Parts: sequence; structure tokens; C-alpha cells
Amino acid sequence: MSTVSLDEMFKALSHPVRRDILHWLKQPELYFADQEHPLSLGVCAGKIERKTGLSQSTVSAHLATLQRAGLVSSKKVGQWNFFCRNEEQIQQLLNQLTQDL
Amino acid sequence: MSTVSLDEMFKALSHPVRRDILHWLKQPELYFADQEHPLSLGVCAGKIERKTGLSQSTVSAHLATLQRAGLVSSKKVGQWNFFCRNEEQIQQLLNQLTQDL
Repeated sequence: MSTVSLDEMFKALSHPVRRDILHWLKQPELYFADQEHPLSLGVCAGKIERKTGLSQSTVSAHLATLQRAGLVSSKKVGQWNFFCRNEEQIQQLLNQLTQDL
Repeated sequence: MSTVSLDEMFKALSHPVRRDILHWLKQPELYFADQEHPLSLGVCAGKIERKTGLSQSTVSAHLATLQRAGLVSSKKVGQWNFFCRNEEQIQQLLNQLTQDL
């Protein structure tokens, strides 16, 4: 894991809304059970927006920060963007932290 | 651990020099063996500055950020400031991350 990506990951984790989003995406069936599309696609950006209660542009910026850090991935299906956690990257970060910090 | 302090901790960890300082302070006998004062006091700010190769003011700002986040503590003895890791806080952060992330 490069130094730059570690910087980006910690910056991404330094905001409570971004930590909330990661937490919700861990168990989408608990937090987004009302999504019409299958949760196996990920969670639709609009659903995440509504759950935060923040504006579309703010949440979009938070999701972009998480994605740049490699902590979430997105998939475009039709007009929708679906987000899910990048579990492999998150696990690598945890392993590295436990070992190095 | 409060949300604010988590924000501060992740911000503190998002810079490679601050991660280096935390890493060096974990085993000061490996990195600061030439310190005249006993390492049980902590590591003198001047020694940390020299090891980074950065200016006094830059390193001072990094140490202040780490201290504000609760990741290091300092002790003033005479004219010197000695720094050491706040292991309890670091362990709490790791536990919380492993559990919540």
C-alpha cells in the first residue's frame, strides 16, 4: 500500500459522515432494505444521500473522496450509481495499521 | 472515544511524517539511541527534528497535531520538550477501527 494511498485513506476516514457511509455499506440490508434494486449491485447514491439528510452535491463529494481513497467502488447501471465497500482495501488498511501503528 | 477526537486522530495519521514520528517513538531505543537524556523521559523535540530533516517550525506543527489528537504526550524538563506515544489512546483507536470499520 503506497504512502499516498494511506494519506488518502486517513483523510477519507477523518470525516464522521464518511465513516457513517462506510458503516452503513457494511450491512446494507440493515440500512437500505427499502431499495428497489438488488443490494448485490451496491447501494444507490440517492439512497445514501437521503440517509445522510445532506445535499446531493455534499454527499457526492464525500463518495468521491471515499472512492479516490479506494475504500468504496461504484458501478453505473442505467441512470444509477451504486456504491459498495472495497473490503479488500479496508482489510489491508486494518492489517497495516495493526502491524505498523 | 468522541467523534471529534476520531476526526483529529485520522487527520493526524494522514501525513507520512506524522506516521514516521509515531513509528520512531514506538521503539525510541532503535532510532534515538544517541540521546543524552534517558529515553524513559521520551524523545527530545530536537532529536525528532533532526531525524526528519525538516525545519523546527514544521516539526513543531506536526508534533502539535499529534498531541492535539491525543496520539502523543509531551513533558517539559528544563529547556527541553520530550515526546512519547500515548499507547492507551492508540490502542483504543485500533480496537475501535477493527470493530467498526
